[in-house]
Order: sequence, then structure tokens, then C-alpha cells
Amino acid sequence: MAPHGDKSDAADETMVAEAEKRPISTILIVMAMQSEALPVVNKLNLSEDLQSVFPKGVPWVRYHGFYKDLNINLVWPGKDSSLGVDCVGTVPASLVTYASIQALQPDLIINAGTAGGFKAKGACIGDAYVASEVAFCDRRIPIPVFDLYGLGLRQAFSTPNLQKELNLKVGKLSTGDSLHMSTQDEASMVANDAVVKDMEAAAVAYVADLLKVPSVFLKVVIDIKDGEETTAEESSQSFAALERAVTQVIDFINGKSLSDL
Amino acid sequence: MAPHGDKSDAADETMVAEAEKRPISTILIVMAMQSEALPVVNKLNLSEDLQSVFPKGVPWVRYHGFYKDLNINLVWPGKDSSLGVDCVGTVPASLVTYASIQALQPDLIINAGTAGGFKAKGACIGDAYVASEVAFCDRRIPIPVFDLYGLGLRQAFSTPNLQKELNLKVGKLSTGDSLHMSTQDEASMVANDAVVKDMEAAAVAYVADLLKVPSVFLKVVIDIKDGEETTAEESSQSFAALERAVTQVIDFINGKSLSDL
Repeated sequence: MAPHGDKSDAADETMVAEAEKRPISTILIVMAMQSEALPVVNKLNLSEDLQSVFPKGVPWVRYHGFYKDLNINLVWPGKDSSLGVDCVGTVPASLVTYASIQALQPDLIINAGTAGGFKAKGACIGDAYVASEVAFCDRRIPIPVFDLYGLGLRQAFSTPNLQKELNLKVGKLSTGDSLHMSTQDEASMVANDAVVKDMEAAAVAYVADLLKVPSVFLKVVIDIKDGEETTAEESSQSFAALERAVTQVIDFINGKSLSDL
Repeated sequence: MAPHGDKSDAADETMVAEAEKRPISTILIVMAMQSEALPVVNKLNLSEDLQSVFPKGVPWVRYHGFYKDLNINLVWPGKDSSLGVDCVGTVPASLVTYASIQALQPDLIINAGTAGGFKAKGACIGDAYVASEVAFCDRRIPIPVFDLYGLGLRQAFSTPNLQKELNLKVGKLSTGDSLHMSTQDEASMVANDAVVKDMEAAAVAYVADLLKVPSVFLKVVIDIKDGEETTAEESSQSFAALERAVTQVIDFINGKSLSDL
């Protein structure tokens, strides 16, 4: 007789395979900044959830609406209650992702935002990338196995049709809580073969992996890490490009199953 | 007429003041490593919670028991399901703290663990420190106000009687996700005036602050950042010292209110 664990694993696998064939219904879009979120909120005609699904006191914001056949939830960790700036970085992103998965049980997570790009790897301002894999660039634990844990490398959900149809660039993504890289962060990104660098994706991937929710990472390059400073006009164009990329991805997903992506 | 917000704030303040005078009942001890947790679990005679209060699939572990007049919950983010190492660092610590506060509604959080110490600031191996304040050392965002957000400086709950009675050292604590410091991390710790360095406290403080739970940070020095390498015997003694310090703090807290600490 097969041990109970094997039966249960087989049942889990069957459930996952069936879920991959059902049309995607509930989408969770995780973004880090209000300036990234609002153009998407407006474009998809989402409304702020005034009866929060989150605990009292947290600044996390959910925008919600139905768009075509999709139940769209866009969450953002809000503004720091003391300082008034967007709660960027891995800790707020992981918390809001966790709480949103618990409350909303999404079929798919899209972590979307602006990111830095490496010119040497072919990134240009305004390029929309889908990450093939994500890793941390600032968790150095030089003890065997802990080093791999610190790196936290995770594959994104595979989306070959989406990438081809929308002509999106594909590359590896590194996540770190600092905007400006230390020499060590930079070495880690080179080791990761990273094309884009953000401040949240590897943490969102960690939580999505824990709770077994497929996740994709859509990043638009807003500045070049190994090049000139971005102008205000280029920044503004990148936010517009992000809105277009998110909308295109949502339009593509509508009516499809996970296995169609 | 006072606006509704003021009335509500006044009511909140009254509730907080009353809560500070009630005997402390439910304690949440957050630790990062099994080797830190088990001596405390054994000493306080706690049992592993087999019907988890956490979602299916997460590796988080809760040990629970009644000790004197206290309802003690010790949580630990568990082992990484792929790699088998302890889930150290800010992201798992923030998640398990968040989920534990939601499930258990503790009166007080004690984030306890081993940490690095700075000899130049007077730290010696085996010293037990209570943090006066905590901050991140590896979140550099050099944009006005975002720089302060990245630093994430938070005061610990004030415990003058506990510190005096148990003769604990008091100092500032820096948190970073790397075991080995970059030059920039080191500069940040000097700027923070840090005596001890760990990998979780500032993230636990962030979550505790969001959800308004008083929190204290008890760290035993296991290695010297600006000195000789720790021997195996010194490591083992530090884990024993951590167990003693946690037990002493729990014994001190028993029968007291928050305002007695």
C-alpha cells in the first residue's frame, strides 16, 4: 500500500493540473508605489476597497473591479504612516502579498513595477521585461546551503505564449532593499546574470511559492544602472509604458487558463 | 464639537493606558533558528502545536504552553522546505510575526536570539542585551524621506525595571539580511551607533508597530564583528545564555503589567 503521503501528493498534483486548465478568474496585481498603481487603476476602472480585507491600522490599499471576465485586485503596501512615503521593499511587499493571498485566494499573481536595467545586458529605458527567474542580491550568508537560501533563486511561472504574443523581453531579475547598489550587491547581480533589478520581486516570489500561487514578474525599465541618469520625461514615459504592459498582459490572460500562458 | 477622529483617538489612548495596567497574559516569543528555540521550548515545557494556527504549506512552527500565569507562544519560521536550513532573515520573520499576531493577539512580543556584537562598543560573547532601538543597516535609499524609511528606526518598548532587575546591557541594534557586512552596511551600523547586529529585529519591530503590539528585543552576543572568530564552545555557551536570559525575562514578566516593565 502506498503511504498516505504519496496518495495525498498525487491528489495535490491532480488538483494543480486541473486548476491549470480552468480559465483564470482572480488576479492579484502587487505593486510597490502609488505612481505605478494609479495609471493601472484608472485604465482598468478599479475602485478602492473601502471595507478593507486587511487588519485595522495597516496602510495597505486594495483596488478592485471586474474587467472582461477577470476579477482584478491590485494591492499596494500604501504610505508609511509616519513618513508618508510609499512602503517600498521586501518586507511590506511580502506582508501585503501574504495577506492578499489569504483574503483573496488568487489564481495568479502579477508583480508589476518599474525597475533598474543593465545596458550591458541589453536593457533600455521603457523596455518591458518578464522575469524568467528572480533572486535576492543583498542576502549574503557565506555558510554552505545558507548561501543558496540567502540567494533565494526562484523560477517564475512559465509564460512562453504571453512573452511571444506580446513581444516582451525576458531576463533574470535581482531584488535588493537598497536603491543604490553596494559593490557586493553589484557582484551578486553579475553572478545572478541579472538584466533588471527591483526592490520586491524575490520577496513576492518567496511568499507565492510558500502558498503555491503561480506568479509572474513584469518590470519596465525606468533607469539604467550602468549608464546615464534618467530624465523626468523618461520617468514619466516609463510609468505610461508600465500601464500599457500591465493592460496588455491582462487582456492576453482574459479567457485563458494557466496552461495557455 | 470635536471631530470624530479626535474622539476615536482619545478612546484608543484610554484603551492603551488600561491595557498597560492589566497583568500581561499572552506572550509571543519570535525566534529565527531551531537551535535558539529548542532550549527555551524545553526549559518552559512548551509543546509543538500540531493543529497549526498557520496556513497549510508554510513551514512556520509554534510551540505553546502555560508557564506560571502566562500563555506562552514561541514561533519560529521553520526550515526552508527545499533547502532544509532555518528560514533566517527579515522576510520570514516579518511573515511569521504578522500571522502570529493575527492568530494569537499577544499582549507583548519578545524577539529573542543570538546576534553579533561590537567589541569597540563594549560587547562580549555571552552578553545579553535589551535593544533600546532597532534599525535596518542594509536598506539604502538616498532620496529625502525615503532614506529615513529605509533606515526604519523604531524604539523598543521601554523596560527600565526589567533591565535594572536583571542587570541586562542596553544598546542599539542594527538588522541586515547578510551575515557578512558590506563596507556600506558597516558604515550604516556606525551611523546607527549599533552595539549588536542581527538579521530579524527591525522587521519584527516594523510588523509589531503596524499592528500596535509592544515589543522587546533580547539578543545574546554569539560572535564579535570586530574581533576574533567564535569557538564552538563559545557558540554553545551563547545558546545556553540565551535560554537563561529568556527564562529570566519571562519570570520577571509573570504577574506584571506592561507599565511595570
